[in-house]
Amino acid sequence: MYRDFLTKDERIDDLELDGLKIIQNKNWFSFGVDAVILSDMVEETKGELLDMCTGNAILPILLSKKTNASKIFGMEIQSDVYEMATRSIKLNNLSERITLLNVDIKNIDSSYFNRFEVITCNPPYFKSNAGVKSTNDIKMISRHEICCTLEDVILSAKKCLVNKGSFYIVHRTNRLVDIFSVARKHKLEPKVIRFVSSYVGSPSNLVLIKFIKGANPELKILEPLYIYNDDGTYSNEIIEIYSKNNIDIER
Amino acid sequence: MYRDFLTKDERIDDLELDGLKIIQNKNWFSFGVDAVILSDMVEETKGELLDMCTGNAILPILLSKKTNASKIFGMEIQSDVYEMATRSIKLNNLSERITLLNVDIKNIDSSYFNRFEVITCNPPYFKSNAGVKSTNDIKMISRHEICCTLEDVILSAKKCLVNKGSFYIVHRTNRLVDIFSVARKHKLEPKVIRFVSSYVGSPSNLVLIKFIKGANPELKILEPLYIYNDDGTYSNEIIEIYSKNNIDIER
Repeated sequence: MYRDFLTKDERIDDLELDGLKIIQNKNWFSFGVDAVILSDMVEETKGELLDMCTGNAILPILLSKKTNASKIFGMEIQSDVYEMATRSIKLNNLSERITLLNVDIKNIDSSYFNRFEVITCNPPYFKSNAGVKSTNDIKMISRHEICCTLEDVILSAKKCLVNKGSFYIVHRTNRLVDIFSVARKHKLEPKVIRFVSSYVGSPSNLVLIKFIKGANPELKILEPLYIYNDDGTYSNEIIEIYSKNNIDIER
Repeated sequence: MYRDFLTKDERIDDLELDGLKIIQNKNWFSFGVDAVILSDMVEETKGELLDMCTGNAILPILLSKKTNASKIFGMEIQSDVYEMATRSIKLNNLSERITLLNVDIKNIDSSYFNRFEVITCNPPYFKSNAGVKSTNDIKMISRHEICCTLEDVILSAKKCLVNKGSFYIVHRTNRLVDIFSVARKHKLEPKVIRFVSSYVGSPSNLVLIKFIKGANPELKILEPLYIYNDDGTYSNEIIEIYSKNNIDIER
């Protein structure tokens, strides 16, 4: 019945949350635990919400259920990915609540400035000269800072937030010096941080950070989030986050 | 037999490491787990070593055993603390290897510039307007950024290090944005970080950081260090660090 929504190499994943579904392309970037734990950190908002580097729009879709945001925007630079994500929004009958824009976040229209209470972003993690480069262009752009750098993301978030608005990101812990120094430079102050580790006792590989535009310096450290138990099964907290969202954890 | 070394309110603590002892004043700042775990992170050096904000000189004393540093300097701004620390050095017959200087690190003589392979610092943790202020001046200066700020410490370390020299600090995790942004600004690059928590699952309250002067950005995250077991006893790793140094853990 969904054949009309799919092109070659695509599949529909059932989010098992109020019947929500998402279209993903097996050759591109698929959402993972990063997007889910980021959505879990976002606090309630009734205002407008923006997700930058939205990809397959997993965050707008999850946040449409988690928050009461009146309107959710998602910005994606890659036209093929944007087009696929738009079909996911239609498939879920969310076109009135979620608007996707095929734009470069470095050139956002000024009508979006000083507008959002909450912005989220699961940005490309790797510098364009770092990490193993994917031979697939679309996947490479999703993972490497080819079309936008960390500083582009920080600057655009700052422009689009209202004063004291919140910006949430998930990123790799080894980018923490870059993140903190760029954010401080642009007065998007890191206020809350949560370190994520695969196991108890293993080095943190991911971080969740909440910034507040124009806030005073004062960083709160949350309890660490562990993804797995020692035996390789998911931790209770991860199971709880997934089941809160009713996402099939085995994907 | 040590009466000549002590003034009112002072005691001698036995470090139980090759007979080393340290004089501490019960009204001032006494060394704690912070200094011991910092000394444990320092890698071997045969060159000259400097400890800034040295206080009762616990770090020079521990590092005289842990490293083969040819000469160890300690800088302390408070003359009363400097004077007590000097008696500890004499008491341990370390006067030839350890030289304490009663100086303000903001005004270091240029003969110390570009000189040290390794610098350590357990700086005042709190901003001068933050935290509970001690009513005791000496203790307050040891804990609050009254005589020197984080930026003073970073700048002085950078001046005194050779190019590619290492700087080690222990600090509070909630100062991490300040630390990273100031260090990056002055090209003292954070290279290795270890988060310290009281318990498994509790938020990190301390961090150990190794910086390298003039290095390229690339942060390595070590496994976290837990101070206590769930039952409140010291963790195996802390017991190991203390017993490596033969320090009486019950102090």
